[in-house]
Amino acid sequence: MNTLGRIFRVTIFGESHGECVGINIDGVPAGLPLQVEDFVPDMERRKGGKQKGATPRQEEDLPIFKSGIFNGFSTGAPITFLFENKNTRSEDYQKHRSHPRPGHADFVAHEKFGGFEDFRGGGHFSARLTAGIVAAGVIAKKVLGEKITIHSEVTQIGGNTDIEKGLQAAIERKDSVGAIVECRVNGLPIGLGEPFFDSVESSLAHAAFAIPAVKGVEFGSGFAAANMYGLEHNDAIEDASGKTRTNHAGGIVGGISNGNELVYRIAVKPTSSTPQVQKTWNWDTNIVDEFSVKGRHDLCVALRAPVILEAMTAIVLLDFMLLENKINRVYQHMETRG
Amino acid sequence: MNTLGRIFRVTIFGESHGECVGINIDGVPAGLPLQVEDFVPDMERRKGGKQKGATPRQEEDLPIFKSGIFNGFSTGAPITFLFENKNTRSEDYQKHRSHPRPGHADFVAHEKFGGFEDFRGGGHFSARLTAGIVAAGVIAKKVLGEKITIHSEVTQIGGNTDIEKGLQAAIERKDSVGAIVECRVNGLPIGLGEPFFDSVESSLAHAAFAIPAVKGVEFGSGFAAANMYGLEHNDAIEDASGKTRTNHAGGIVGGISNGNELVYRIAVKPTSSTPQVQKTWNWDTNIVDEFSVKGRHDLCVALRAPVILEAMTAIVLLDFMLLENKINRVYQHMETRG
Amino acid sequence: MNTLGRIFRVTIFGESHGECVGINIDGVPAGLPLQVEDFVPDMERRKGGKQKGATPRQEEDLPIFKSGIFNGFSTGAPITFLFENKNTRSEDYQKHRSHPRPGHADFVAHEKFGGFEDFRGGGHFSARLTAGIVAAGVIAKKVLGEKITIHSEVTQIGGNTDIEKGLQAAIERKDSVGAIVECRVNGLPIGLGEPFFDSVESSLAHAAFAIPAVKGVEFGSGFAAANMYGLEHNDAIEDASGKTRTNHAGGIVGGISNGNELVYRIAVKPTSSTPQVQKTWNWDTNIVDEFSVKGRHDLCVALRAPVILEAMTAIVLLDFMLLENKINRVYQHMETRG
Amino acid sequence: MNTLGRIFRVTIFGESHGECVGINIDGVPAGLPLQVEDFVPDMERRKGGKQKGATPRQEEDLPIFKSGIFNGFSTGAPITFLFENKNTRSEDYQKHRSHPRPGHADFVAHEKFGGFEDFRGGGHFSARLTAGIVAAGVIAKKVLGEKITIHSEVTQIGGNTDIEKGLQAAIERKDSVGAIVECRVNGLPIGLGEPFFDSVESSLAHAAFAIPAVKGVEFGSGFAAANMYGLEHNDAIEDASGKTRTNHAGGIVGGISNGNELVYRIAVKPTSSTPQVQKTWNWDTNIVDEFSVKGRHDLCVALRAPVILEAMTAIVLLDFMLLENKINRVYQHMETRG
Repeated sequence: MNTLGRIFRVTIFGESHGECVGINIDGVPAGLPLQVEDFVPDMERRKGGKQKGATPRQEEDLPIFKSGIFNGFSTGAPITFLFENKNTRSEDYQKHRSHPRPGHADFVAHEKFGGFEDFRGGGHFSARLTAGIVAAGVIAKKVLGEKITIHSEVTQIGGNTDIEKGLQAAIERKDSVGAIVECRVNGLPIGLGEPFFDSVESSLAHAAFAIPAVKGVEFGSGFAAANMYGLEHNDAIEDASGKTRTNHAGGIVGGISNGNELVYRIAVKPTSSTPQVQKTWNWDTNIVDEFSVKGRHDLCVALRAPVILEAMTAIVLLDFMLLENKINRVYQHMETRG
Repeated sequence: MNTLGRIFRVTIFGESHGECVGINIDGVPAGLPLQVEDFVPDMERRKGGKQKGATPRQEEDLPIFKSGIFNGFSTGAPITFLFENKNTRSEDYQKHRSHPRPGHADFVAHEKFGGFEDFRGGGHFSARLTAGIVAAGVIAKKVLGEKITIHSEVTQIGGNTDIEKGLQAAIERKDSVGAIVECRVNGLPIGLGEPFFDSVESSLAHAAFAIPAVKGVEFGSGFAAANMYGLEHNDAIEDASGKTRTNHAGGIVGGISNGNELVYRIAVKPTSSTPQVQKTWNWDTNIVDEFSVKGRHDLCVALRAPVILEAMTAIVLLDFMLLENKINRVYQHMETRG
Repeated sequence: MNTLGRIFRVTIFGESHGECVGINIDGVPAGLPLQVEDFVPDMERRKGGKQKGATPRQEEDLPIFKSGIFNGFSTGAPITFLFENKNTRSEDYQKHRSHPRPGHADFVAHEKFGGFEDFRGGGHFSARLTAGIVAAGVIAKKVLGEKITIHSEVTQIGGNTDIEKGLQAAIERKDSVGAIVECRVNGLPIGLGEPFFDSVESSLAHAAFAIPAVKGVEFGSGFAAANMYGLEHNDAIEDASGKTRTNHAGGIVGGISNGNELVYRIAVKPTSSTPQVQKTWNWDTNIVDEFSVKGRHDLCVALRAPVILEAMTAIVLLDFMLLENKINRVYQHMETRG
Repeated sequence: MNTLGRIFRVTIFGESHGECVGINIDGVPAGLPLQVEDFVPDMERRKGGKQKGATPRQEEDLPIFKSGIFNGFSTGAPITFLFENKNTRSEDYQKHRSHPRPGHADFVAHEKFGGFEDFRGGGHFSARLTAGIVAAGVIAKKVLGEKITIHSEVTQIGGNTDIEKGLQAAIERKDSVGAIVECRVNGLPIGLGEPFFDSVESSLAHAAFAIPAVKGVEFGSGFAAANMYGLEHNDAIEDASGKTRTNHAGGIVGGISNGNELVYRIAVKPTSSTPQVQKTWNWDTNIVDEFSVKGRHDLCVALRAPVILEAMTAIVLLDFMLLENKINRVYQHMETRG
């Protein structure tokens, strides 16, 4: 239930205000050099507190290696990373335990887990769980190698392609705001994926919708395709390598990568924890009343999403690459006696 | 690779112009009454040849029962259905084997399967494979029972909410056209799904992107959420049952069903086989040249999609219901001696 | 529930006295030449009616190709085979429906499936389902190639290593009898399998215990190891290739193939359907009474087991070989234009 | 690759002489009371240093809770336990790195992981990984409840049913020795398991062969069945509940639990690390030479096995119970406001 992947498999665990969050990563080829420093750039990109509209909560957020790494290299055994929760202020959350927060999982978690869920800071539902995913993404990117590049960025905030302005509008409104995040992958071989259930789209969308706050996923032309005619949508093949001039397909046809740029986008809803006063049911008084969230939150959670989307993409694509024998199960060989 | 589901599991097989297409369905509770007649309404909805813009190819398209049904009831063993391919005109396809058709899987299939793929009519990539999925959907709907209703329909064609007009525009243009299909589910219990990887969104999107020609999937507010502010997006909870007046969440919060209507939409691209003359690479002459498709094709493949989307939805939701013990593994009991 | 494997995946279906039994095989590399004739030798080995002590029931038992094969080669899409049930005498079974037969699944099937199970000839529990497994084994052996040899044979019947005598003793007693079947694999590379849950032993034993009537599985020294001391059991490594003179390990250490011969054995119980009069509960009269089985049955079901055990072994080992990138996902390439 | 189970899923990680070993357990119903004290009895049984023939290495070996537990109850989110490695003497192992130890995974690990494996104390292959499995077993037993009892014990050492004498013989020989361990389960409902691949035998054997040093698994009559005739082997059904007087089936027929006692046995080889001088290939000198193991080891590793086998059994059976809806996904409900 908390696992993704077939050969490259990640399992996430932990709670926002528990001891830690973490990840277990199975299927990492042996011989991959891994240092804590490798994780700094992407973990920094995921962190809040660095940009306008991002939460002031700060964690060092570097993975603590617990298994699967020996003398600076992956061993082929499962890798486990922990991220300690040092900087929690659970009292913020206990205060409004009586109010299931709109847009959050408070209500459904309570129903599903019979009241035993760790509700502090969203518990196991928290976006803090994505720390492990970003770390797994760092590994996946390293294994994929330099020929395959994955780049993701926010392309719109609140409908505004000038991101700065879109964010400013939200700040002025004292409200959270939604956004679009796009991901582009270059250098993929032709032939990843399968028709139907294991299509590249099915697999990437599965992973993308696992990112909290995602409401939509589209590939290539996406929803615009619904307004198009066949002649304008079809990408004419221009040479023996399968290159197309247009890319409405977004690099995937029949569920399979076609060698062109893979392009897809996610829609991210406004952060549910808005600074505005909201209404919701009060479990203690049994009436609808007002409350406001005092915790530290991002105005635009999408600002952290690009590196998470890159990580999900790398995890899914590496799994396909391993399935298709495009990557060796041993990343490099020692000069060994064996 | 051709299997979906954990407890209720479907495996599809077959080729468009081979002997048959079919499906194997494991995890069907024993004691479900099943007659061929049960499949007629949904199979009719999936068929072409009945409405403007749909392909004139006609197959009887009723499932031939091969296993798992005895004396009119499911036995608990896996059910296998075949659909014979009687009405094939493969010569239509062999003619333009030299041209990998834009928007189709010809090129990627050829690369991935080394030239051994059955290319006739798209082979294993054909939308004809969805016949089995619709049949599995009939079973899933029956097991879900009457309290859970799943309804899907085309809401836009070529950007036009008057469907008739949208289709007429394409007919006049002699071109294929894209569309939006929406699915609504009522009567779901609270608590289906998991945070992250096994979220209801991840699972439904996985299945929806397995439908040929789907370019986007969105839940509730979907891509519009990217343009919204938190206060307007959040659905205030109004009573102890979790009812919300607005439903931007689309019935899912934190990956889990919240008891409100589940709403999601898919974007379907224009049928790749347009009547228009197109350009593509010619494998025989090694130049880009023109060709046109002479086969029988839908102008708007989305017209067949609602019943397929319903089926995928029923398959995924039944799997969640079985996982959550909301449905018995034996549908009904005989008055038995045992 | 009726599926085995990760990359090379088989799904079985059908009933002994229904229309057919069959198998769906996913993950077959494209480009494998396949003719019905390829299946004759192993299907013949599995058949009854040819040797002393085997059931006189005869079926043609050649697979009917339904999907995944085109122009004599695998296409990369899932292969489906059916085996028709022509030669059934269901009335034999209906007669003693009142008696849940000892050693058979009648009683548990009735409890588990609420009385809806197809009880004729064991229904979905019948060893006839192994026809599909043997056919999948033929494919797996072909993909594994000639360097890897899998050989299985009966080594004891009723405790007698002279097989003929062991069988004769049973015939004279007019009773069924148990046996030992051994399987030896040569030519495996070092490195298949994982420590713990995906060990080669776990995976092979999982498959072997899926063969009806198997009561025990042992590798190398097996149960004799319980009587041994460390110095005598350990296999000293004799050269840089890992060769050992003794082979108590049976070719697997730490869950992983070590390059020596893989050796394992199964214990097969006596056929439950003995010609002798037996006692069991009578569901109709609610007393224990006597009954005798009039169907056609093997005295020693183990006589059919070698080819089934070979097939299970080939299926499991091919899955490991594909996982370890030891075999290409495309078996051969056409001289193609692509 | 390091994961077992479908609904109740365990994932193990860690190395013998790394920082820790641990386990991630998904699918634990919410509301199960869990204290460190719950784990003491079974963890004590698994520990070495307490009995003749067991290794003097001692670890506190109580699980450190890292996720999934809140206020003394399971939350429904995945539980992670760590066991720190405090008492390691890696220098013992580095000394004979030149000698791949017979019976150990040194050689195969080196080949499979290209020399990057953590070789200290067997690394990820170590039986120390079973600490997590025993902890998961404690949880599984609690969820199964008191009506289902699982009991395992050593029944023979070195062929001697007087266990004390069997062990004494090995001590006198200064050699390690093999043993038989038996497991008995009472209170199971009828109907767990499936015919063929998901049979109870397949699933339990899969788990049992994941225990290091296991060479054989047998159910009920086991290998003795190979020497028996049908009339003596068949268990006559004696009443409407399916009770049988004899139990050659070991509680499983047709892959499915039949309500009688489940009985199975494993054969455990002698500990590979014997105090005797052994021969093996020397990777440094490229000759076969002698070496002796100086580490701390059990003479009879089977002495620790009963609690591990119980744990594996509980894990597998709980998974079946959850699949069959015999256990609620929420163990108990709080008096909640929701």
